[in-house]
Amino acid sequence: MSASEEAGKSAGNNNAASGGNAAVSPGIESLLSQVKFGADGLVTALAIDDGDGQVLMLAHMNRESLGLTLANGYMTYWSRSRKKLWLKGETSGNRQQVISASLDCDGDALLFRVKPEGNGAACHEGYRSCFFRLRKDGAWEVQGKPLA
Amino acid sequence: MSASEEAGKSAGNNNAASGGNAAVSPGIESLLSQVKFGADGLVTALAIDDGDGQVLMLAHMNRESLGLTLANGYMTYWSRSRKKLWLKGETSGNRQQVISASLDCDGDALLFRVKPEGNGAACHEGYRSCFFRLRKDGAWEVQGKPLA
Repeated sequence: MSASEEAGKSAGNNNAASGGNAAVSPGIESLLSQVKFGADGLVTALAIDDGDGQVLMLAHMNRESLGLTLANGYMTYWSRSRKKLWLKGETSGNRQQVISASLDCDGDALLFRVKPEGNGAACHEGYRSCFFRLRKDGAWEVQGKPLA
Repeated sequence: MSASEEAGKSAGNNNAASGGNAAVSPGIESLLSQVKFGADGLVTALAIDDGDGQVLMLAHMNRESLGLTLANGYMTYWSRSRKKLWLKGETSGNRQQVISASLDCDGDALLFRVKPEGNGAACHEGYRSCFFRLRKDGAWEVQGKPLA
């Protein structure tokens, strides 16, 4: 849905991470205006699989990465460790196409339903979901295996 | 599961928010040792409905609130606005019983499958989920209505 409608607005640049200060359309600007970025300029972004609802990962977005995500239809986070825009799957091919986006009551967290591409791994350790360690009594026990 | 096994460890205090510095069992201590709390002492905690997997809310926990959650089996967050422990549902009755807990790859986010109690509203605005505003083009559109 939103993947195509706004794609032309960012100067035909498919590489969101290098989008820089691309102009933001009035529609995207309106959406961003209701998001409450924290003192660190970030909001929490949650990605769940649109197919079965599984929680895939939780990361962060700054205003620019959220704008790019909403405009281009692919999840673009802000990497707190690398301090740069992070188009998910840019190198691995495991991109996450945005199917829908929801904002929470406080305006500081977003939930995205996504369609995983590539081998479907959201986690940098190769697992489908980053939440692959389940509590078993006094230990966090790894569940499943990394995808091929 | 974890709701009962450790309940006795916090001196029989069912009110987690007032648990103070209750002793932490070795099992809970082991779990906490692998969690990476941020510079602000917090991790992100996500609650999803164990029944249908719906994402209910996203909030934060400090070490003490996570310990209480793991020990007592009811979601206890850290309220960033009120700067205090927050036993979810303490006043509303809409408690969230912990069914399972998972830790993400980075160790700084937790996913809890919960069984909502009371009228089932996770959101302080009365909605079942805090993520009740869905993007429709250039607006965040409210979906559904608050629960009775």
